[in-house]
Amino acid sequence: MSIVITAFERSPDGGQGLARDTRVRWALEEVGQPYQVRLVSFPALNEPAHLRLHPFGQIPTYEEGGLALFETGSIVFHLAERHPGLLPDDADARARAITWMFAALNTVEPVILDLVIARIVERDKSWAPERLPLVADRVRQRLTQLSTYLGEADWLDGAFSAGDLMMASVLLRLRPSGLLDEFPNLAAYVARGEARPAYQRAFAAQWAINAAKPAAGSSTR
Amino acid sequence: MSIVITAFERSPDGGQGLARDTRVRWALEEVGQPYQVRLVSFPALNEPAHLRLHPFGQIPTYEEGGLALFETGSIVFHLAERHPGLLPDDADARARAITWMFAALNTVEPVILDLVIARIVERDKSWAPERLPLVADRVRQRLTQLSTYLGEADWLDGAFSAGDLMMASVLLRLRPSGLLDEFPNLAAYVARGEARPAYQRAFAAQWAINAAKPAAGSSTR
Repeated sequence: MSIVITAFERSPDGGQGLARDTRVRWALEEVGQPYQVRLVSFPALNEPAHLRLHPFGQIPTYEEGGLALFETGSIVFHLAERHPGLLPDDADARARAITWMFAALNTVEPVILDLVIARIVERDKSWAPERLPLVADRVRQRLTQLSTYLGEADWLDGAFSAGDLMMASVLLRLRPSGLLDEFPNLAAYVARGEARPAYQRAFAAQWAINAAKPAAGSSTR
Repeated sequence: MSIVITAFERSPDGGQGLARDTRVRWALEEVGQPYQVRLVSFPALNEPAHLRLHPFGQIPTYEEGGLALFETGSIVFHLAERHPGLLPDDADARARAITWMFAALNTVEPVILDLVIARIVERDKSWAPERLPLVADRVRQRLTQLSTYLGEADWLDGAFSAGDLMMASVLLRLRPSGLLDEFPNLAAYVARGEARPAYQRAFAAQWAINAAKPAAGSSTR
């Protein structure tokens, strides 16, 4: 059965790869599954056809035969569970890799998203100059904990896993702020993720859309 | 092998059941697994012994024989995968239930947590009166989408699942704000969750600690 995901017709990041379809593309590339992409315009996100796939009007979605999923974490986990390459075979190591997926999405990404909101959505608000440092410090607190845990290791728990894919993807959202560079081992960790051939292919595929094709109807592979 | 979780020695919510151990207790009760609780003081959260279990210095953690996990989502999923009662047997329905777990934790909880921060952590900041309505409106946007999706259904996708356990737990954090009551079908959904015998037992167990026992060393069941 062919896999179809959705992505922005034009990503608001202009092709930096920060839109969440990149995470799913990366997972698909890691497990070697071909896929097609249906591009969605911003207005179409809140139309009934898309809301039937994604109740919160976001991307990406995932369709495979009769199965329709949304939520990046769920899609990446679905792929990781069905194909080798993203979860260890050992039951305990597998549970720990899944733990890191949830940690990326529920403990690390929320503070990073707050920083993105403070830097972009609320940048012109009267409170921005005073509040931004507080929000940045909340990010630093989490990054300090993560940096301490990671130490000199290459990945979070042994071999590269879906947990690393998700954590590196979440940390990438920090790059425009410069905060990631305050933690050299985390910056190196993210760079290791970006250097993976599967990430390179995923990035190139989203770049091909966002840098070159303003119109809808593209697909990859 | 016996299961040991951690919880706050004294929950900051004074026993409202909003600390995240309640989610894990609820899951344990739904699948009928006995467990013990090790209480942790606030200062001890950042001591090496606890950070070895939870790199971000939070509760709950989960220990079972040689396996140690953190992150509520991961622990609930671990239980749901190993015991009947929280995930459907059908593969597609199971994937959708997992999707709702991730949606609760990565799409709904972050905006709710922002409101909690705005209402409590930043309540005395100069920007609080002007900013709070913006944050509340971000919550309303998500709740509107969720309310539209749920409609008159009892649960998010057929029978009660780990996805509902997590979504109801996340929505409970909104109760002190009054926002949940603006969406009667969501308020009724949360009330259905709270009415489950397993939730009642979980709530009572955390209440026994937070209402009556200021000292460490308790256990349930």
